[in-house]
Amino acid sequence: MNDKVLLAHGSGGRLSHNLIEKYLLPYLGNPMLNKLDDCAVIELNGRIAFTTDSYVINPVFFPGGDIGRLAVCGTINDLAAGGAEAKYLSLALIIEEGFPIADLERIIASVSSTAKEAGVLVITGDTKVVDHGSADGIFINTSGVGVIPEGVDISGSRAKEGDKVIITGTIGDHGIAVMSQREGIKFSVPVVSDCAPLNGLVSDILKVSTAIHCLRDPTRGGLATTLNELAVQSDAGILIEEDKIPVKDAVRGMCEILGLDPMYVANEGKLVVIAPPEDADRVVEALRGNKYGKDAVVIGEITSGHKGRVALKTRLGASRIVDMLTGDLLPRIC
Amino acid sequence: MNDKVLLAHGSGGRLSHNLIEKYLLPYLGNPMLNKLDDCAVIELNGRIAFTTDSYVINPVFFPGGDIGRLAVCGTINDLAAGGAEAKYLSLALIIEEGFPIADLERIIASVSSTAKEAGVLVITGDTKVVDHGSADGIFINTSGVGVIPEGVDISGSRAKEGDKVIITGTIGDHGIAVMSQREGIKFSVPVVSDCAPLNGLVSDILKVSTAIHCLRDPTRGGLATTLNELAVQSDAGILIEEDKIPVKDAVRGMCEILGLDPMYVANEGKLVVIAPPEDADRVVEALRGNKYGKDAVVIGEITSGHKGRVALKTRLGASRIVDMLTGDLLPRIC
Repeated sequence: MNDKVLLAHGSGGRLSHNLIEKYLLPYLGNPMLNKLDDCAVIELNGRIAFTTDSYVINPVFFPGGDIGRLAVCGTINDLAAGGAEAKYLSLALIIEEGFPIADLERIIASVSSTAKEAGVLVITGDTKVVDHGSADGIFINTSGVGVIPEGVDISGSRAKEGDKVIITGTIGDHGIAVMSQREGIKFSVPVVSDCAPLNGLVSDILKVSTAIHCLRDPTRGGLATTLNELAVQSDAGILIEEDKIPVKDAVRGMCEILGLDPMYVANEGKLVVIAPPEDADRVVEALRGNKYGKDAVVIGEITSGHKGRVALKTRLGASRIVDMLTGDLLPRIC
Repeated sequence: MNDKVLLAHGSGGRLSHNLIEKYLLPYLGNPMLNKLDDCAVIELNGRIAFTTDSYVINPVFFPGGDIGRLAVCGTINDLAAGGAEAKYLSLALIIEEGFPIADLERIIASVSSTAKEAGVLVITGDTKVVDHGSADGIFINTSGVGVIPEGVDISGSRAKEGDKVIITGTIGDHGIAVMSQREGIKFSVPVVSDCAPLNGLVSDILKVSTAIHCLRDPTRGGLATTLNELAVQSDAGILIEEDKIPVKDAVRGMCEILGLDPMYVANEGKLVVIAPPEDADRVVEALRGNKYGKDAVVIGEITSGHKGRVALKTRLGASRIVDMLTGDLLPRIC
């Protein structure tokens, strides 16, 4: 019984404390978390960004990452997309009774190493256990707070006509990596999730341009859905050139086999950047100087026409409207 | 199909947006949430409290509350227990495919009315849907941020010898209300959960004493576990008098039938307050002036002996050590 999570680990009593002291604090401990008060106290001043995401990905381990790394990156990236420097995270676990302790420990170690890479601290948390059959392994919620530097004003509503649309690298890697793991498909060159914390990437580009208008990570729903959100929020048209969008050959091939469009496949380590044309080259250069942005490229621009919609100029020169994702092509991808 | 939550409602695409616009924003909307950016931006200065909790209660509707009210109260109360004025909440939903939309709407309406009662705003959120059988109805995570007023210094580690231990009302109501609903037990006088936002109660007592040392809400694990946590954190002994602890007759009766000790049964609308003896009467009086503290009473004190442990003076005058909860007597109580 000692190698499985038990209902009593979620009781709030002795076993909950044991679980926290044995498997969480050794990896995540810091003076704020170690206090084990009901809330953590931090000193913050100015414009604070606050975000939350739950992660229900299946399977929890996949090529290039796991639910722990994903939960840290996803929330850091939402803060980064608001122009905020990520500072502190919360970590809330919902664990199914019977989940292997070894898997939990591996996930928490991954939370720890990813948080260290990104320079953030987990300062408060919660652990719940539900009976066998009432959840699927483990679900994780991370919420995060960060500080927005002076002069930065980034929102999905700020895209302006003439702005350039940049993607920081190849699309669809995360979704295809998870699908291939789920379906047991092997590639000669494995597809690996792009799951990564992008706060460093954002701070790199804010050094060369404080006039960036929009940042967003194209996760669930993929690039197409994110661009549609930005078009609607900014009441602007977006025109994208298909042949400029970077897609790995293996991802393209897998998409063809599965009947998927890479434009709708989830990413976990990419950003859409919308910046004034005079700053675009500098921004792309700065992105390419960071390992998480080395394939950055301008893929289109903000137009005056078809407000609130995204148009794609295809390889053949035709133009078509790209809508938001309808239905769910890849459930539980994050 | 229109009356159930579908997998595609969690896709991040069109149906996710529809769900948010139709069932979440009408109840929760405010200028920050309505932006639908990946993070919300708020202006905050000073000592900020940050907390998180997931709620997996079964059943989601119970006498005196529901998972929505619980999720708002629980997180507000964790902030209040840090001495913080709760300001902003995140709301992250994990919904099982097939969950009735009408139930979701009822829960969100309850989140809204409870947040209004407490004067907090939900400013950021997330919705995930998992396939049927991979969760049990709905799980909710709320994280919260609040501001700690100047001069307030509250922590589980600050209890001092001679301090008085106060409970703000009857114990065990929440746990027994949920159990009775789960088991289909009817009382002649129904037991109702005490689920309530306690931020107003805390601000009332901080007006009469800024020297309060510890506050904590005795949720999972009950009063006994909370007192044990405080004894350990403060490296202090706690002596409680059994006959001073308020317990409703129906709760006591139900506990006897089920073989439970009310000291270990969860509360969701109570606080343990530890304050210097010279402030104790003022604090009790202030508590009693608030509807959520009308049965407040001193139940014991901090002693020099048996450091890190809780002793109970029984009705018969004997004294015994009360340990933290071991095992899990009431799973999924919050």
